[in-house]
Amino acid sequence: MDERLARVTAALREAKADWAILTNADSVCYATGHVVPVETGASPFAGGPTTAFVSRDGVCGVVSANVEGASAAASWAQTVHYEGFAFDHAVDPIRNYLETAEAFARQLGVGGTLAIEAESHPSALKLAGSGGTVEFGPFLKRVRATKTDEEKPLMQRAAEAAAVGQKTFLEALHAGRNELEIFADIRCSIEKFAGERVALTGDFLSGPARTAGFTGWPIDRTVASGDPVICDLAPRVAGYWGDSCSSTSVERASDDYLKLFRAARGALEHAIDIMRPGLVVADLDAELRRIVGQAGYSYPHHSGHSLGTSVHEWPRLVPYETCPLEAGMFLMVEPGAYDPSVGGVRTEWMIEITADGCRPVAPFDFMASN
Amino acid sequence: MDERLARVTAALREAKADWAILTNADSVCYATGHVVPVETGASPFAGGPTTAFVSRDGVCGVVSANVEGASAAASWAQTVHYEGFAFDHAVDPIRNYLETAEAFARQLGVGGTLAIEAESHPSALKLAGSGGTVEFGPFLKRVRATKTDEEKPLMQRAAEAAAVGQKTFLEALHAGRNELEIFADIRCSIEKFAGERVALTGDFLSGPARTAGFTGWPIDRTVASGDPVICDLAPRVAGYWGDSCSSTSVERASDDYLKLFRAARGALEHAIDIMRPGLVVADLDAELRRIVGQAGYSYPHHSGHSLGTSVHEWPRLVPYETCPLEAGMFLMVEPGAYDPSVGGVRTEWMIEITADGCRPVAPFDFMASN
Repeated sequence: MDERLARVTAALREAKADWAILTNADSVCYATGHVVPVETGASPFAGGPTTAFVSRDGVCGVVSANVEGASAAASWAQTVHYEGFAFDHAVDPIRNYLETAEAFARQLGVGGTLAIEAESHPSALKLAGSGGTVEFGPFLKRVRATKTDEEKPLMQRAAEAAAVGQKTFLEALHAGRNELEIFADIRCSIEKFAGERVALTGDFLSGPARTAGFTGWPIDRTVASGDPVICDLAPRVAGYWGDSCSSTSVERASDDYLKLFRAARGALEHAIDIMRPGLVVADLDAELRRIVGQAGYSYPHHSGHSLGTSVHEWPRLVPYETCPLEAGMFLMVEPGAYDPSVGGVRTEWMIEITADGCRPVAPFDFMASN
Repeated sequence: MDERLARVTAALREAKADWAILTNADSVCYATGHVVPVETGASPFAGGPTTAFVSRDGVCGVVSANVEGASAAASWAQTVHYEGFAFDHAVDPIRNYLETAEAFARQLGVGGTLAIEAESHPSALKLAGSGGTVEFGPFLKRVRATKTDEEKPLMQRAAEAAAVGQKTFLEALHAGRNELEIFADIRCSIEKFAGERVALTGDFLSGPARTAGFTGWPIDRTVASGDPVICDLAPRVAGYWGDSCSSTSVERASDDYLKLFRAARGALEHAIDIMRPGLVVADLDAELRRIVGQAGYSYPHHSGHSLGTSVHEWPRLVPYETCPLEAGMFLMVEPGAYDPSVGGVRTEWMIEITADGCRPVAPFDFMASN
């Protein structure tokens, strides 16, 4: 049994539930290996969310629209397709989804207490023999927080995809180009690395005002010499998200900019020095803010977060998180330094917690040598 | 009142319902002007779908996560945000979504018979005073089939975005480049036209086998001289989808390829000759298949479809659709011709049905002059 599936069954026991009904794309991928495409929105041919059923014993099934077939290639689940799309006759995707899902659930023996995901569980899905429901998210997030042996190469590959994009960023960044053009080059390099289309989120910001604002997608703005630039890239490869952030200054960097840069990078370097199993997240967060604060700056955002089949997972690196780091966690660490009169800097690598410390998973240069 | 909102109220009367509870991104956009971002999947900070409430009288509200605020710029709805994301304290997005949506529904007076969208209506959303539910999709699709005066410039702009991409396609297509590189140039030109990131679906296929298979996203395949190429581009601009398809042959076109090309383009030209209010869709579909058939070919897909805030809307141009064309419909028409030994061709423009005929909305060249 894939260790991810085993962990879902463990979470079911923890939740005192008999079956999980998974309707979020990220948890379907985690529990079954079935990668739901996300980058063009919900399919007009879907009658409901791609849905996974998982029992305490590891019985595992997926219901998806027939147009989603190819994405099931790496799945270990028994998969049934309903007709969401046909060329030669009319279809009713909602009815087909519901009938197929309900029949498949009966066949698998779904019943007892159901662990559901309330934010996406369709009200119309009626599952027989239910002994009540429990919200599964709080249980699932804990088993997902450390990565399994099957996941580690997927995290590595997602981090490498981000690093490829960051290398292209530094090469493609020139005064006179606009943000959308540079972002297109970045995306293309990531897609060539992955060999396919890639969902990509993050931030791309140039100029003092935009970088000081610290978040936003690229716009049709021409980059000028001396502009600070933040490039935060989170690509999804084979169902797993990478993340990353570079910051640089176009062609030349002012002393004030370099102060910001050193504050942020210094905090990240400090993180790598101190991250190890047992360190409490709130203490890590406080240490990073202390380093940035010593330089005279602060950052109005979290210090990082876990990720996997979702781009943000538990734990988040925030002042109110009291859990300790554990070996096998893959965490984004992203201290920043912002000054409205200069702009903003954020430096982010993926860090794996190891048995006795940590390692950057796919480190890259943050800043062009000007 | 925006005519789209007025049409939603008309559909509510038709459905004998009192309030619509809209949870699909496309119908939320249609009814409220609130553009839900779709291109990076569901937000990890959302506790449920962005949800719109619309009454028979045109009272109109939207509930969305606080991180989705900026996209509400063009909305005429009263919008409330729930906290899905915060930097300085823990949040429970599901609870916040449910509490905010339920309180807002009480404030607006939501009750009576509810028209819902079963494929995305969350089971956890409890709305007081319900007198039962009715599936709204079949009613909504009919009022959306002709575009309002507010929508026509949005359809025009979406079609122009697709045409910009198609022009770039013909310029960027050279032997030795790979599909992903060409697709990156195309996307960049569309995003520069739109001034922002754009969700983009469709197909990009090169070579005999891939084009004969007629559907698929770009891959890391190098295009060769003489390769047939299909470029089907559907971008989403300001919440409205354009669509389009070019077909060409790299550097040189064989006589067999030109036969395919003329069959498909001839069918599209014939469509423009005959499309007018009153023409029954099945008859249009049959005519297009007849033209392609006369040349000795066929196509294993629909002849086209409507679109708007969804990339596929009713009516579809298929043999079993008996509705007549109506003035104000915007239809994609996409006859094709396929031969496994040669490849495939598909030619697609957006066509507006006018009072006495039709017009291509933003026509573009399909084929490079070799």
